[in-house]
Amino acid sequence: MHTIKDLQVKVSEIFDSRDYMSAPSELYEPIQYSLSQGGKRLRPLLSLMSCSLYGGDLDEVKNAAIGLEIFHNFTLLHDDIMDESPLRRGMPSVYHKWDANTAILSGDTMFVVAYEYITDTNPNILIDTLKVFNTTAREVCEGQQYDMNFETQKVTSIDDYMEMIRLKTAVLIAAALKIGAIAARASKEEQLRIYEFGILIGLAFQLRDDFLDAFGNEKTFGKPIGNDIVTNKKTYLYLKAYQLANKETKLKLDSAFAIEDKKQKVKEVLSLFEELNIREITEEKITEMYNQSKQLLKEVDRPEEEKSEMYTFLMKLIKREV
Amino acid sequence: MHTIKDLQVKVSEIFDSRDYMSAPSELYEPIQYSLSQGGKRLRPLLSLMSCSLYGGDLDEVKNAAIGLEIFHNFTLLHDDIMDESPLRRGMPSVYHKWDANTAILSGDTMFVVAYEYITDTNPNILIDTLKVFNTTAREVCEGQQYDMNFETQKVTSIDDYMEMIRLKTAVLIAAALKIGAIAARASKEEQLRIYEFGILIGLAFQLRDDFLDAFGNEKTFGKPIGNDIVTNKKTYLYLKAYQLANKETKLKLDSAFAIEDKKQKVKEVLSLFEELNIREITEEKITEMYNQSKQLLKEVDRPEEEKSEMYTFLMKLIKREV
Repeated sequence: MHTIKDLQVKVSEIFDSRDYMSAPSELYEPIQYSLSQGGKRLRPLLSLMSCSLYGGDLDEVKNAAIGLEIFHNFTLLHDDIMDESPLRRGMPSVYHKWDANTAILSGDTMFVVAYEYITDTNPNILIDTLKVFNTTAREVCEGQQYDMNFETQKVTSIDDYMEMIRLKTAVLIAAALKIGAIAARASKEEQLRIYEFGILIGLAFQLRDDFLDAFGNEKTFGKPIGNDIVTNKKTYLYLKAYQLANKETKLKLDSAFAIEDKKQKVKEVLSLFEELNIREITEEKITEMYNQSKQLLKEVDRPEEEKSEMYTFLMKLIKREV
Repeated sequence: MHTIKDLQVKVSEIFDSRDYMSAPSELYEPIQYSLSQGGKRLRPLLSLMSCSLYGGDLDEVKNAAIGLEIFHNFTLLHDDIMDESPLRRGMPSVYHKWDANTAILSGDTMFVVAYEYITDTNPNILIDTLKVFNTTAREVCEGQQYDMNFETQKVTSIDDYMEMIRLKTAVLIAAALKIGAIAARASKEEQLRIYEFGILIGLAFQLRDDFLDAFGNEKTFGKPIGNDIVTNKKTYLYLKAYQLANKETKLKLDSAFAIEDKKQKVKEVLSLFEELNIREITEEKITEMYNQSKQLLKEVDRPEEEKSEMYTFLMKLIKREV
């Protein structure tokens, strides 16, 4: 078993020693730019953590872990085109720094590079790893489509929202853990357990993101507060508020979300959220997921101490304390 | 050994029996639309032909062949965005019928589906198949980038052009043949030989495309004649003309390519092409490739009769007679 600190160092080493440049430079420079920006590199870390938890050899999961991170960055390149996002990790997005065509084609190439790394997995576990990766990649695309659909849909249920964030965010976190378990030759049952654990962690992570956008602290959150409110984004908080509001409050929500002045808008919406107890309800929902995930981890057949280090880290991560 | 006719029927059966619909429909309808348009389905046919030539079991190559065709269609979806093409196979392109975001995300999903089919290959030959597929996919992206670079470059050499069409077009044709050979458990040497053969066929196919755009017959070519001239596309003919022209003729070419009236432009450019013997020079270049490919096929260790049926078919294909 390695400490989380060890694994973080290992992830940094893996990425810092790599260069993605090749010819033509117009294609590979944006890839190099995207992958050198760093970010949390959460997914490879999760793969290494899971492999280590199950007593595996980290070299067996290394390449697949790199593949997962490159895949994740590929989705960001394409998402930024679709969402017209000028920024990514506080820097100009590839879409904005270059153009849409560059983000399309460099993104496609990153997708291939991700598969090249996955392919470079021990043949004994290649098919299992590939299948998890394929299924996950397809689901992430489906999640992005549902997310785009929601923008134009008049009514979105909370169930549909949870399914969307499961596909768009949670499955890749769960897959990262499962691929680590596969690399460590954990049993099918354990693979499934750590996957389900990852789904809960992923959902909690996204709900916490929704929560922090409204009730967070700009410094620890790392993004401006209230952005989801300003853009009328259908978050868990938004949907819950409309679900719980009576006719009169619904009209108030409509008015608040229609306010032009950004500051005023955020203030009014937050006050309605408080009135409807959205803060407590969301926290409760997240806690419910914590408890479920804790229960699942309890069943994982590994030493308590090792599980607890991982869990503590993940809790901090969800709370944006790491 | 199967006849080409048998294999064509088999390819049709494979594709006609498949449905790509799933949820969300916004994501999968464009995929279904793209894959049901048919087209020549040349790449899966080549895989089956090569597998059959080397005496293999077609079931061993079937899924990879489907993967190649889906991959090819994925590249068309994204190329049509980058090239702003409203039409594909005489029908509205996905980009035009829906929008760029749809073409991006449905395209990405097709790329995953292609990998799902590749993954569903006999584990004994999976890694070899995957590696060919990965390398080819990356090269096709590089080819598209070079093609886009050429649009804004002032000077492009013929060598660079040949390298671009090798990457953009020929490697996928060569890979289709190689994957068939891998499925038939042909030797590494034979795999390489049929790959090199495919490169020559692919290059000849593209040069013939360039040729027919200028000197072809609209009916057999299936596209309007002179389109490359109208759009000032840097084809083999264009580059060769500028390479051979003296100062005076270069100025004439410049003037001709600057003509506004499309009909007049095509007429003037064609007359300069004839003056520079571009027709004969291009035909000669294609013939040179035929001869090289024939030489390679001679060395393939299979019965003459079977090789000759394949070759005759490919020659017809290049001449757009099938």
